[in-house]
Amino acid sequence: MMSQKEKSVFSRGPDLLALPSQSRRLRMGIVGGGRISKVQSLGMRLSDRWEVSAGAFSTDRDRSAARGREWYLPQDRIYTDYRQMAEVEAGREDGIDAVTITTPNDSHYDIAREFAARGFHVFCEKPMTTSVETSLELVAAVRSAGIRLCVAHAYAGHAMVRQAREMIRSGSIGRVRQVHVEYAQEWMLGEEIQSFSHVKWRQDPARSGGTACTADIGTHAHHLAAFVSGLEMTRLRAELLVCGPLKQLDDTVYVNARFEGDVPGLLWASQVAAGNFVGLRFRIYGDTGGLEWDQEKPDFLYYSKVGQPAQVVRRGYGGGNSDSVERLTRAPAGNAEGWLEAWANVFAEFAADVAEKKGLLLEPPVPLFYATVEDGARGAKFVEAAVTSDRAGGAWTNCQIEF
Amino acid sequence: MMSQKEKSVFSRGPDLLALPSQSRRLRMGIVGGGRISKVQSLGMRLSDRWEVSAGAFSTDRDRSAARGREWYLPQDRIYTDYRQMAEVEAGREDGIDAVTITTPNDSHYDIAREFAARGFHVFCEKPMTTSVETSLELVAAVRSAGIRLCVAHAYAGHAMVRQAREMIRSGSIGRVRQVHVEYAQEWMLGEEIQSFSHVKWRQDPARSGGTACTADIGTHAHHLAAFVSGLEMTRLRAELLVCGPLKQLDDTVYVNARFEGDVPGLLWASQVAAGNFVGLRFRIYGDTGGLEWDQEKPDFLYYSKVGQPAQVVRRGYGGGNSDSVERLTRAPAGNAEGWLEAWANVFAEFAADVAEKKGLLLEPPVPLFYATVEDGARGAKFVEAAVTSDRAGGAWTNCQIEF
Amino acid sequence: MMSQKEKSVFSRGPDLLALPSQSRRLRMGIVGGGRISKVQSLGMRLSDRWEVSAGAFSTDRDRSAARGREWYLPQDRIYTDYRQMAEVEAGREDGIDAVTITTPNDSHYDIAREFAARGFHVFCEKPMTTSVETSLELVAAVRSAGIRLCVAHAYAGHAMVRQAREMIRSGSIGRVRQVHVEYAQEWMLGEEIQSFSHVKWRQDPARSGGTACTADIGTHAHHLAAFVSGLEMTRLRAELLVCGPLKQLDDTVYVNARFEGDVPGLLWASQVAAGNFVGLRFRIYGDTGGLEWDQEKPDFLYYSKVGQPAQVVRRGYGGGNSDSVERLTRAPAGNAEGWLEAWANVFAEFAADVAEKKGLLLEPPVPLFYATVEDGARGAKFVEAAVTSDRAGGAWTNCQIEF
Amino acid sequence: MMSQKEKSVFSRGPDLLALPSQSRRLRMGIVGGGRISKVQSLGMRLSDRWEVSAGAFSTDRDRSAARGREWYLPQDRIYTDYRQMAEVEAGREDGIDAVTITTPNDSHYDIAREFAARGFHVFCEKPMTTSVETSLELVAAVRSAGIRLCVAHAYAGHAMVRQAREMIRSGSIGRVRQVHVEYAQEWMLGEEIQSFSHVKWRQDPARSGGTACTADIGTHAHHLAAFVSGLEMTRLRAELLVCGPLKQLDDTVYVNARFEGDVPGLLWASQVAAGNFVGLRFRIYGDTGGLEWDQEKPDFLYYSKVGQPAQVVRRGYGGGNSDSVERLTRAPAGNAEGWLEAWANVFAEFAADVAEKKGLLLEPPVPLFYATVEDGARGAKFVEAAVTSDRAGGAWTNCQIEF
Repeated sequence: MMSQKEKSVFSRGPDLLALPSQSRRLRMGIVGGGRISKVQSLGMRLSDRWEVSAGAFSTDRDRSAARGREWYLPQDRIYTDYRQMAEVEAGREDGIDAVTITTPNDSHYDIAREFAARGFHVFCEKPMTTSVETSLELVAAVRSAGIRLCVAHAYAGHAMVRQAREMIRSGSIGRVRQVHVEYAQEWMLGEEIQSFSHVKWRQDPARSGGTACTADIGTHAHHLAAFVSGLEMTRLRAELLVCGPLKQLDDTVYVNARFEGDVPGLLWASQVAAGNFVGLRFRIYGDTGGLEWDQEKPDFLYYSKVGQPAQVVRRGYGGGNSDSVERLTRAPAGNAEGWLEAWANVFAEFAADVAEKKGLLLEPPVPLFYATVEDGARGAKFVEAAVTSDRAGGAWTNCQIEF
Repeated sequence: MMSQKEKSVFSRGPDLLALPSQSRRLRMGIVGGGRISKVQSLGMRLSDRWEVSAGAFSTDRDRSAARGREWYLPQDRIYTDYRQMAEVEAGREDGIDAVTITTPNDSHYDIAREFAARGFHVFCEKPMTTSVETSLELVAAVRSAGIRLCVAHAYAGHAMVRQAREMIRSGSIGRVRQVHVEYAQEWMLGEEIQSFSHVKWRQDPARSGGTACTADIGTHAHHLAAFVSGLEMTRLRAELLVCGPLKQLDDTVYVNARFEGDVPGLLWASQVAAGNFVGLRFRIYGDTGGLEWDQEKPDFLYYSKVGQPAQVVRRGYGGGNSDSVERLTRAPAGNAEGWLEAWANVFAEFAADVAEKKGLLLEPPVPLFYATVEDGARGAKFVEAAVTSDRAGGAWTNCQIEF
Repeated sequence: MMSQKEKSVFSRGPDLLALPSQSRRLRMGIVGGGRISKVQSLGMRLSDRWEVSAGAFSTDRDRSAARGREWYLPQDRIYTDYRQMAEVEAGREDGIDAVTITTPNDSHYDIAREFAARGFHVFCEKPMTTSVETSLELVAAVRSAGIRLCVAHAYAGHAMVRQAREMIRSGSIGRVRQVHVEYAQEWMLGEEIQSFSHVKWRQDPARSGGTACTADIGTHAHHLAAFVSGLEMTRLRAELLVCGPLKQLDDTVYVNARFEGDVPGLLWASQVAAGNFVGLRFRIYGDTGGLEWDQEKPDFLYYSKVGQPAQVVRRGYGGGNSDSVERLTRAPAGNAEGWLEAWANVFAEFAADVAEKKGLLLEPPVPLFYATVEDGARGAKFVEAAVTSDRAGGAWTNCQIEF
Repeated sequence: MMSQKEKSVFSRGPDLLALPSQSRRLRMGIVGGGRISKVQSLGMRLSDRWEVSAGAFSTDRDRSAARGREWYLPQDRIYTDYRQMAEVEAGREDGIDAVTITTPNDSHYDIAREFAARGFHVFCEKPMTTSVETSLELVAAVRSAGIRLCVAHAYAGHAMVRQAREMIRSGSIGRVRQVHVEYAQEWMLGEEIQSFSHVKWRQDPARSGGTACTADIGTHAHHLAAFVSGLEMTRLRAELLVCGPLKQLDDTVYVNARFEGDVPGLLWASQVAAGNFVGLRFRIYGDTGGLEWDQEKPDFLYYSKVGQPAQVVRRGYGGGNSDSVERLTRAPAGNAEGWLEAWANVFAEFAADVAEKKGLLLEPPVPLFYATVEDGARGAKFVEAAVTSDRAGGAWTNCQIEF
């Protein structure tokens, strides 16, 4: 038998995700066939909690079939119409447990409503909907259907993001006094890209919801700031900017923010910041310490306590990881984890919640931290407030939402 | 339709592994139930080429069953005896296509022989066997059975390791003039760990094959040096050392090496180098440039061309990745990949080869680079030569092998 | 004789500062005796262009004498009154050529006027004066006296800051589209420090000029942004904040900016950002590339050209340093330079200008880039505009100045 | 008056070197006029303990005069013959206190003897002499003359090297178990450089002492290993290699070492390791922790205690710097120090010792750590042992020396 000590040494190493076991893998249906649907599918597989069991990948039969083959789906689980998928799957004994929505922003609401109404749980790409109004309607729909909805803020699934959150909650940096968060990319530079289909709908106000960069990546930064600091953003002043090739909507946004307790902060995002790929970073400063994290090196969290040498807190063995963080770890300290692990963590937490609802959980539930439908509504409010503030010349604008 | 340009922009982003498609996922049986079997299983799932379909996880029925449940296996695919698994699975229509061997070193040979003899393909933990003699017998057995054997040198599956290899082959650093490789860990420090079961068999000459650190991690460094430089190690001088708590076998090894063309190099490995988790790193210097890589930040490859600013070559978009590297990529540049992706790449390449043998490949085959049974024999020769040299006071000793 | 090639290889290495030679070292008098006066003195010595020849280090005779001994000054060059020093030194044949002013902000103006009026050249700590009005009067005084005034923006003396400036001027990143600059410190955290003398005058509006953090370090960030980007800041919106222990003036400032050509940017500075020592950093994004620099690792400049691997541009040999940068280099590439070299560079450039005015230059003059009296006035305007904007609730405020 | 607390906060910041004050600056004569003489001169100036007062820069009158002008020397202090300089300066009231020898290796011994015999203190470039025999004769000469000799191991003057040494002495990593040190450069790549004068004498066995890379940079690594670990190297096995363009002597050396207490280690040096400028690095592993340092980022020392997050120990404020380290600091934490500070520290320590000998010290002496004539002899022994071992096919060879 393993001693306590031996267990603790073993726990330095890899383990299956230490969330409660389920009696079976859950079955996911996919709506949409873009690249993000592939990424999500890999996250699901890695989570070992989900199988891709059905999909409406495209309204074009051949394209949908081709994508379905990638997941080895039988013909009768490949659809061209999400409504049909909802109806057929609802009638199957081995039908899907949940659906993931990976289509353009303006369609999220209708699809989510359709599946929620039939009792399917929903995983939804961000931004959840394109208006505060629809997001609140979706909150109501989800609540009334009694289903779970998870918004795809995958970055919050990184173990070291969880570690930062836990450290702040336990007082490692004292009272939070400033929140800096940024998300810098470069991919919208270049003239030719402006005409590509996945750029075009993002630049179409009707489909994207009135902002491009703000909705697309600003919402990630907004969610991460609150998730880690433990403080919701309450008001903001925003500038929506075009800093790259001429276009209809913003490719850059600067936000001056106040968080709960009147804590100030800065948030900026840009898709034309040359040299940046996925430059999502936070720096949170408290009375007695600070924390920094960069998504591109996700295993490393930099912690400074005033008057002491800075520490490099790492996933896994090495001191300091909280239990709820070790639970989300698959590789030993020193063997890198990455973005797909973050996705897998979010899918695993979502699975644990869905499994509990369906009576498939084999162990007692644990606290879960995925982004909920309410978080999705907070993101919609953030986007709306940014637009409002920008139109008012950068006036302070409320961005908090009541449920 | 997507233009060529649009495709190239899209190719910046994530894609399913771009190896030839298969008509179905392959079925893997697992022998052994330690942590590495879990890691491998996650790698298989992430590869989307394999399912865990059967397992002899332990000779203890309850332990084997418990582990089987983690992979949602039905009772009749969970075994306590690998021979029985081989026999039963060979008789099933939906039987396994291959087996992975994750047991202690001294058992690899017998298990591999058993499955090879029945025509199963074999995935084998390193070191492949504990002697040159048995490794050569396994080479013969594999060849005569006409099956594929892959040795678990997962680090060679990292995209940036492939990139380094490709750059060297294409002349980016000129003629290779020095090869430095090291693998530093710290986990064997601490008195209590010496009595743990997974340490004990590694320190038992009969089970490990006469060396501990050299066989366990030295073989990874040995394989990586040749894989990246394109040059096999030909002779060596070695010191086997105990630099941590007293123990029977080496926890540290220093190797002076010569590679093909009489290129000199240094290889060292230690499991008691405080502050190191998985410090596998190479630095290869040529006439006109150099390349450096650190496994703990696997997405970054440092390339210096004499007289020019150093470059940070990154997986994915950003210039310079070769096709055979992009083929092994799942996340866009900037979204981190890690160790499980490296495992998944090796499993995917092994799958492509197995699928071709079985007529399940849907597209033409591509070049594959996983470690073969011959590479496994080279590793055994390296270990044997290191022991021989150490016993002879560090004499130069041949470590090349003829097949 | 050295060949051209040999010379170029040699030039990889250290050399005395390659600015025009002078027939003698210049003589500097110091007003003020705080730590920055010591730092400046080391910078002067390292420049090999200056000797500390006199000083009014304190109004207390003993303290002034003690500090004078550190520079091995004879008794008759140690003063307790800067006016007396000005008068006496003006009458000596071997009198000082210039004076450096290292006293609290509110005294700069009077001291500079006094020495300028007597024809001494002036080196002045930042902020140059505490109001736009006095700064413009000082511009007029300096012009009318025909002397040189250098403001102590030492960070602009770092070789890699010059390199960034040169690269932007030569088009390496295309048209500048965003300017991000920040200066984060932590030293104002801690309750006890609030009562220290060097903090107290900074927090006294009458002595500091109405802002603390903004004047103290915000002006450095403001100068650096314009110096590197080549674009002056034209208007701003500012928030002056207290994010650390309660105090009278700002310890943090957030600035939304526009630069010439309506280029947007963000500038923030904080003296209570835990974990930061001297976190002065810029990131400048253009149409085709970006540049990043961190003062704490000053020898490394990160350059990204869209579609190519990022480059680490280094001081000295290795490609890419422009002539005007190599001119400011003392150590070979790989041997670190630091803050005192930056000071030495500024003092050396100031010396070259003073020597030319005095007919002491032995070679033709070269372009010089130190911060002038006009730059000092720009800094005063920046501070004033930040206060004005903050009081107006963050309204856009002009911060450009006409001369 | 400053409170204790205020003093401690102030001590975070820059200060003049906190070694004992001297009643005057010491006067240095220079023999040799290459680049290293300039570097040394800058180190002297920065130390504020020395003035360059005389020099025999070249046997060519014009060249010597030109170099003398760079230090503003009067004509009568510029020599073309070091013997003449020794004689004349010995007769001057304001004559030099010490001499620094920056000529090719084979001349060090004669020059040092000449000046020692006249009672001048000596600062000597490494390697001190080209044989063990002459180095021991120099030890005897220095002892008999009662003068001080300092060998130019400037890297040991870096504050963080001192910090590492202090941490090891105070038990921060437990008992030292492995010592890894390396010094990688690239400048000897390239065909043309082989014909340059400063390369030619290094490649001439008669002038360099039988090795090139080993004597030139191997001795730095050898000194640093012992200095930091506190353990002298006792025996070694060495390979002298040519890994770059064909040449007469080694451009690369690999050393397997034993240190006092039979502690194993590896030392390697190469001047043809593409991508390396001044890659002098150590990694020292103990029972309970490890320390890493890279000369190219000298302000950062990485400290790992087993089972705790790694720490970034920095010069200056931030916790953990010992008194003897803070004494060598000029810039506040966060403002970078570099190579010239290391030189200045060595010159300052040498000055303190010389000043004490000459009765010029104004305060009680403190412990000093510069490399002595005995350290120089240890370096000569190391080089000789490496050659002996290499010729004997890498046999274990004693490298300890008795005095």
